[in-house]
Amino acid sequence: MITLDDIRQARQRIAPHVRRTPLVQVDALSAPVTEAELWLKLECLQVTGSFKARGATNKLLATPPQDMARGVTTASGGNHGLAVARAAKLAGVPATIFVPTNVTQAKIEKLRKWGATVEVVGSVWNETNLSALAFAHDKGCAYFHPFADPYVVAGQGTLALELLEQQPDLDAVLIAIGGGGLITGMAVALKALKPSIRIIGIEPTGAPTFHASLAAGHVVKLDKVTTRVATMACAETDRDVFATSRELIDEVVLIDDDDMLEAARWLWFEMGLAADLSGAAAAAALRKGVLRFSAGQKICALVCGAGPEGLA
Amino acid sequence: MITLDDIRQARQRIAPHVRRTPLVQVDALSAPVTEAELWLKLECLQVTGSFKARGATNKLLATPPQDMARGVTTASGGNHGLAVARAAKLAGVPATIFVPTNVTQAKIEKLRKWGATVEVVGSVWNETNLSALAFAHDKGCAYFHPFADPYVVAGQGTLALELLEQQPDLDAVLIAIGGGGLITGMAVALKALKPSIRIIGIEPTGAPTFHASLAAGHVVKLDKVTTRVATMACAETDRDVFATSRELIDEVVLIDDDDMLEAARWLWFEMGLAADLSGAAAAAALRKGVLRFSAGQKICALVCGAGPEGLA
Repeated sequence: MITLDDIRQARQRIAPHVRRTPLVQVDALSAPVTEAELWLKLECLQVTGSFKARGATNKLLATPPQDMARGVTTASGGNHGLAVARAAKLAGVPATIFVPTNVTQAKIEKLRKWGATVEVVGSVWNETNLSALAFAHDKGCAYFHPFADPYVVAGQGTLALELLEQQPDLDAVLIAIGGGGLITGMAVALKALKPSIRIIGIEPTGAPTFHASLAAGHVVKLDKVTTRVATMACAETDRDVFATSRELIDEVVLIDDDDMLEAARWLWFEMGLAADLSGAAAAAALRKGVLRFSAGQKICALVCGAGPEGLA
Repeated sequence: MITLDDIRQARQRIAPHVRRTPLVQVDALSAPVTEAELWLKLECLQVTGSFKARGATNKLLATPPQDMARGVTTASGGNHGLAVARAAKLAGVPATIFVPTNVTQAKIEKLRKWGATVEVVGSVWNETNLSALAFAHDKGCAYFHPFADPYVVAGQGTLALELLEQQPDLDAVLIAIGGGGLITGMAVALKALKPSIRIIGIEPTGAPTFHASLAAGHVVKLDKVTTRVATMACAETDRDVFATSRELIDEVVLIDDDDMLEAARWLWFEMGLAADLSGAAAAAALRKGVLRFSAGQKICALVCGAGPEGLA
C-alpha cells in the first residue's frame, strides 16, 4: 500500500501546512504510571486538533486540482472531518462534511468555523458514508476516505518520522486504532527505520477491529460496535491497510470506554492536556497496567487528538 | 528583593519537582495574528496547571522543616492554592487553602485531589487572606504569600531562564500580571541576561494595578477591582515587588475580560490548548492588535495557566 518513501514524500509535501508537535517527557507526576521513561507526543496540538490534518493535507496536495474543482467531501463524526474541512480551505474549494446524527453541536460548529457545509445523515458511520459517496458521485467532487487511502495513510505516517527525530531511542510506541490508518502509516515508518521498536495498538473493547482481525488472520467485520468513542468506532478495517500493518504491529491491547475517560481526566489533572477519548487511549492502556515495561526503557504514548471530555 | 543569583538557586532547588515546559513556534494558523515570529511558552502544562508550582515549590524548599511541622496555608481562589497544596504534599505536611466564596466547585475538587483542606471564606481575596493569616497564627503553620515573597518571586523567575535557553533570540515577552510576582521574577532574569529584551505586561482593564502604579510612580491601591478574572483580580501589588520590576517593565497593556475569553477560545480552536483566562491574556493582547512587531522579530506569549474557559 505504502512505503517509507511515500511517507517521506508526504512529509515534504505537507510540511508548510502542518505543525511539528512537541514531544514531552513526563515527570513530576503525583504518582508514577510506569517503570519506564514516559514520553507524550502532543499531537493534540496539531492543526484542527489531531493527526488527521497530516493525512488529509497529503491527500489534498496529491489530488489534481481539476478533480477538486467542485469541492471535497467525506463522512466523519470526528477529527477527519475537521482535517478535510481545513484542507479544502487551504485549497480554496468547498467542503461538505457528512456527520452521523449523534455528532455533538460543538463539533458541527467547529466544522462550520473551518468553512465546511455540514450534512447530518445516518446513525452509524457506514450509513453516513453512503451519503457522502453518493454526494461525491452526484456533484462530481473529490472524496477523501478517512483511512483506506494510501495518501492519507502516508500522511499519518509522517508523525513517526518526526517522533524518531525527536527521540531516536524509543523502545515502544502506543497508538490508538480507529480504522487503522494511523497505526499503519506509523508502523511502516517506525519498523523501516528501527526494526526493534515495539508497536502497541490500543482499541476499545467495544470495537476490537484489529484485535479480531489479527486473531483471525484476515479482516473481520464486527457484528456490532458498542464503544461510545466515535473516533474509534470502526466495524471493519480496509484489506490493504490490514495487509500493510498486520506483520508490523506487535500487539493490540483492549480497554474500556471508561478507562479512556479516566485517562482523559488524568491527562487534564496531571498534565493540563485536553485530550479526546481516543487521544487518551494510549495513556489509558498504560494506566490500566496491562503492559509491562522496565526501568531502562523509553516509551511513547501518543496523545492523538484534542477534546473537552476530560475536563467535565 | 531578588537577584539573578536567587533565581538560579531557585532553579537548582526546584528542578526535580517541576517540569521544563515546551516552547512551541506557532505556525499553520488559519489567519496570522502578528507580523513577527510567534512562540508560545506552554506553562499551562506545568505541574498543577500553572507557573505557580515554581514559586510555591521554591518557597517550600527554602522553608525550614520545623516551620512547616504544623502544615502550610495560603489564600487563593486560583492557581497558587493548587501549587501550595501540591508543595505541601511533596513535603508530607497538611495544607489548608482558604478560597473566596466565588470559587468554582471544580477548583475545590482539584484542591482536594491534591490533598488540601479547603476553607471557603470571604468574597474578595484580601478578606479571604485575613482568615488565612489568622489561621497560620493560631495554628502555627507556615503561610505562603502568592506574590510578596522573595522565594516565590525567584521561583517564578526560573521560567525566564528556561525560556532564554529554549530561544535565546527572543525580542519581546508578553506576560500576564496578577499580583506581579511572575513578571517581576521573569523581568529580573530576562533583563540581567538580555538587556535589550522588551517586557510587556498584560492587565485587565478591571484591575490595572501595575498600569496605575507605573503612571503614579508608586504603588497605588485601586478603588475597585471589576475584572471577573480571579487570577488577575489584585487591588494592590507589594512595594518590594513593584520596586524590583518597575524599571524593568517596558510597558503594560490593558485588555478586557472578553478579550481574554475570545483568546482562550482562539487558543483552543487553533492550537488545541486549554488555557484559563489569565493564560490567554498574552495571546489576547496580540489578537487585539494594540502591539506592533515587525516581520523579523521573535516574540513569546506566555500561556501561564490551564483552564476550561475556552472550551465552553
